[in-house]
Amino acid sequence: MSENTVWHPNKVTAKNREDLLLHRSACLWFTGLSGSGKSTIAAELEYRLYQRNVLAYILDGDNIRQGLNRDLDFSPEGRRENIRRISEVAKLFVDAGLVVMTAFISPYREDRDRARAIIGSDRFVEVFVDADLDVCERRDPKGLYKKARAGEIGDFTGVSAPYEPPVSPDITLVNDDRSDVGTHVETIIGYLNDRAIA
Amino acid sequence: MSENTVWHPNKVTAKNREDLLLHRSACLWFTGLSGSGKSTIAAELEYRLYQRNVLAYILDGDNIRQGLNRDLDFSPEGRRENIRRISEVAKLFVDAGLVVMTAFISPYREDRDRARAIIGSDRFVEVFVDADLDVCERRDPKGLYKKARAGEIGDFTGVSAPYEPPVSPDITLVNDDRSDVGTHVETIIGYLNDRAIA
Repeated sequence: MSENTVWHPNKVTAKNREDLLLHRSACLWFTGLSGSGKSTIAAELEYRLYQRNVLAYILDGDNIRQGLNRDLDFSPEGRRENIRRISEVAKLFVDAGLVVMTAFISPYREDRDRARAIIGSDRFVEVFVDADLDVCERRDPKGLYKKARAGEIGDFTGVSAPYEPPVSPDITLVNDDRSDVGTHVETIIGYLNDRAIA
Repeated sequence: MSENTVWHPNKVTAKNREDLLLHRSACLWFTGLSGSGKSTIAAELEYRLYQRNVLAYILDGDNIRQGLNRDLDFSPEGRRENIRRISEVAKLFVDAGLVVMTAFISPYREDRDRARAIIGSDRFVEVFVDADLDVCERRDPKGLYKKARAGEIGDFTGVSAPYEPPVSPDITLVNDDRSDVGTHVETIIGYLNDRAIA
């Protein structure tokens, strides 16, 4: 290129992308036991945000464990690296201007705190989907608890591996048998409004 | 949640997100020697797309090597895993509706072919930034060639590690001393128009 080329003359910023999208970016970090309802609530929220012209995206087991993190196992080290990579990808999505949701058990407090540090606490919203183990086990949508109890799955959160509930989550959704997903979504939408995110 | 909850009732699709953004998604995969001009062209293209209300995002050494891939080295295995993870992240961005650009040397043909397979060939645009080694070495914007020649950096593409040029790239930009970044950007914009992407 010619000598007088100005390198990176017009850097497009995260703010520019937010302005283009007409909303702010954030990471909604869902945490809770398997079967607590993380993915269900995230999917309904995604739809409601889409109706409001908010560009949202869900990172979950379907698109992460089968792709980026296919090389990782469910050992403590594997889970730790799983959450680290998800945190880094979520950070990129926030930088790109989206409302990104992560729907993973993410059982360790330390890993979630690191996610907050990586993404930036001003953009990080910890959403605790609080459902009792017996409720989750009764639902067992994927039949995983049954397999874990039968010893067919090792290191299963709540059965053979720990879950450390958040100490001070930004949002807590108590999700028992009488809860309604729409109500939870309203709670989150209210929070996003209050924070002037979307 | 109550028994009559419909799970994932309204799945938001990649097509929905494209419709919201009013453009299609794609991955522009830049490949070329260090100093060939990948990042410069990508940054200028990003700005031009932003002016056209296209949501674009660049994955490059700054946001990937310092974050997601901070655990990887520059050995053949490290480079291979680097490109694999970038491919998986680019796939997520394409699914999210963006025009994502990747600006990495990506020296191995096999790795780029795998990127195409992961992302999907209908969404993958290989952009070969073709600059001669001596031109790149003369530019040496980061002083890396000098360090590589001095033996301070090992496995340096073009010096002590191979670069395998694309066999049939979707776009080739010959980027010598008389080239203009604006002309290259026009070429890519023309391609995106022809493909009805943006």
